[in-house]
Amino acid sequence: MREQFHHFEPISVRWGDMDAMGHVNNAAYFTYCESARMSYFQEIDMDRHREEPAHGPAVVTATCNFHRQLHYPAQLEVGARTSKIGGRSFTLEYMIFRRDSDEVVADGSSVVVWVDYAAGKAIPLPAALRTAIESLDGPAVTASAVKVIVR
Amino acid sequence: MREQFHHFEPISVRWGDMDAMGHVNNAAYFTYCESARMSYFQEIDMDRHREEPAHGPAVVTATCNFHRQLHYPAQLEVGARTSKIGGRSFTLEYMIFRRDSDEVVADGSSVVVWVDYAAGKAIPLPAALRTAIESLDGPAVTASAVKVIVR
Amino acid sequence: MREQFHHFEPISVRWGDMDAMGHVNNAAYFTYCESARMSYFQEIDMDRHREEPAHGPAVVTATCNFHRQLHYPAQLEVGARTSKIGGRSFTLEYMIFRRDSDEVVADGSSVVVWVDYAAGKAIPLPAALRTAIESLDGPAVTASAVKVIVR
Amino acid sequence: MREQFHHFEPISVRWGDMDAMGHVNNAAYFTYCESARMSYFQEIDMDRHREEPAHGPAVVTATCNFHRQLHYPAQLEVGARTSKIGGRSFTLEYMIFRRDSDEVVADGSSVVVWVDYAAGKAIPLPAALRTAIESLDGPAVTASAVKVIVR
Repeated sequence: MREQFHHFEPISVRWGDMDAMGHVNNAAYFTYCESARMSYFQEIDMDRHREEPAHGPAVVTATCNFHRQLHYPAQLEVGARTSKIGGRSFTLEYMIFRRDSDEVVADGSSVVVWVDYAAGKAIPLPAALRTAIESLDGPAVTASAVKVIVR
Repeated sequence: MREQFHHFEPISVRWGDMDAMGHVNNAAYFTYCESARMSYFQEIDMDRHREEPAHGPAVVTATCNFHRQLHYPAQLEVGARTSKIGGRSFTLEYMIFRRDSDEVVADGSSVVVWVDYAAGKAIPLPAALRTAIESLDGPAVTASAVKVIVR
Repeated sequence: MREQFHHFEPISVRWGDMDAMGHVNNAAYFTYCESARMSYFQEIDMDRHREEPAHGPAVVTATCNFHRQLHYPAQLEVGARTSKIGGRSFTLEYMIFRRDSDEVVADGSSVVVWVDYAAGKAIPLPAALRTAIESLDGPAVTASAVKVIVR
Repeated sequence: MREQFHHFEPISVRWGDMDAMGHVNNAAYFTYCESARMSYFQEIDMDRHREEPAHGPAVVTATCNFHRQLHYPAQLEVGARTSKIGGRSFTLEYMIFRRDSDEVVADGSSVVVWVDYAAGKAIPLPAALRTAIESLDGPAVTASAVKVIVR
């Protein structure tokens, strides 16, 4: 599984990530994936690929499947990769591993749309961004069917 | 849309829910849905329907679709309802509205599995729980195909 | 106690505010006070009193005394008032009440310094800001001794 | 400064720790100190020193002084030590450093009272706990004047 990923973000579980059930709260997993997404964006140099300062990514859907309960303390690594690219959006997949292990504690995904923030609508992905993604993750599956909801 | 829901949880957006993008962070929406889920569980008297103290719900999947950006201050209401019931799980659907409005800012769902926490495995939903859910939300679609992942 | 405050922020405790001890986490109280501080700033029209866009408030110290354990669900109100004004800073005091009750669940304070963000140093409070604060909260104690640490 | 501390907790700043001001939110610093407190409690083997399962620590006051703004990504270390011990309470001091640096980004403290949770009142610190603290941190200043508020 790890071989599928070329980008990893280390995460240390904090005591405060646990909730009244005594394990890591569901929402924390989305924060872990978010950190991985942000460092992934840095790795592909996203800021250089914006055609205008007011163009950029917007997450329109986020999903997580929780495989294992987690407790503080724990050391994790979140793998992130682009699994699909469409005309105006791409899909990031995440896999959360225990550090130095193949144990998957959760997996998830988010659909990221390329947006003109001022106009509030989806616009085509810059060609340079697509190239940067494919340089890191290899040729992506074209996702003609990614449903884009931006309002 | 609102007519589909018989349970609502009021949510006040907090300044601290916003992130460095200047709008409400994705993870906060899952916290809003969680509050709605917890009060929904109270409304169907879930604790009375546990056949053992160590039996109870576990969220195995959570999804959210973000339709609108949100900023502090904002008043919301999260509708929650069971849309599918399987043998060992059920699916909750959420719709997040601006309070006193039909504007939907997000929708989402979570798959909840009934678990024997000590054994760490999914077990059949208690009949009384199913009845309580259907008393609130009406006859649910049977979800024979809900994939149950609990490890 | 309530009579001391002319500004209140309603807060609804969320299930996710609780931690693994089963009660509201310490850090959440600071988030509650932060919401009260932000709406207090709106009430005194702080944005109108900035002499430059890059001048504004910075919290340099935050303190909270926890009097009662809290659990979801609970409805609170946070009173906020300026208790001291110095040349370059002022002190906000908070009192967290159960809504419609005189029960104080926590109190706290924060020292807010007026900062030139670009220069990264404390500068004198605008006279109009001081007037706005005193219009709301009455003549404030002059705090010549507020220690200002901004680096 | 670092020499004063015998216990450190590494913290990685997360993107989601930042707020709408674009830097790490105040409440996050308290979460960082909390992680340090919890691992400090493990290091002094606190659980072994409870005379009853329902006896344990309760934070009654938390303070933080913010010296530097922080941004993701950043690697920190939180030093924690007991600076005062009273009959029924002790004071933990924290210093948050950038990792592998002497730069202090914040310091703080919390007053921890030893509580009989069932009775809801402060009780004397177990002698073994005091010994464990002093084994780690050296003879502590006796804090006869620590004000204990537990209700």
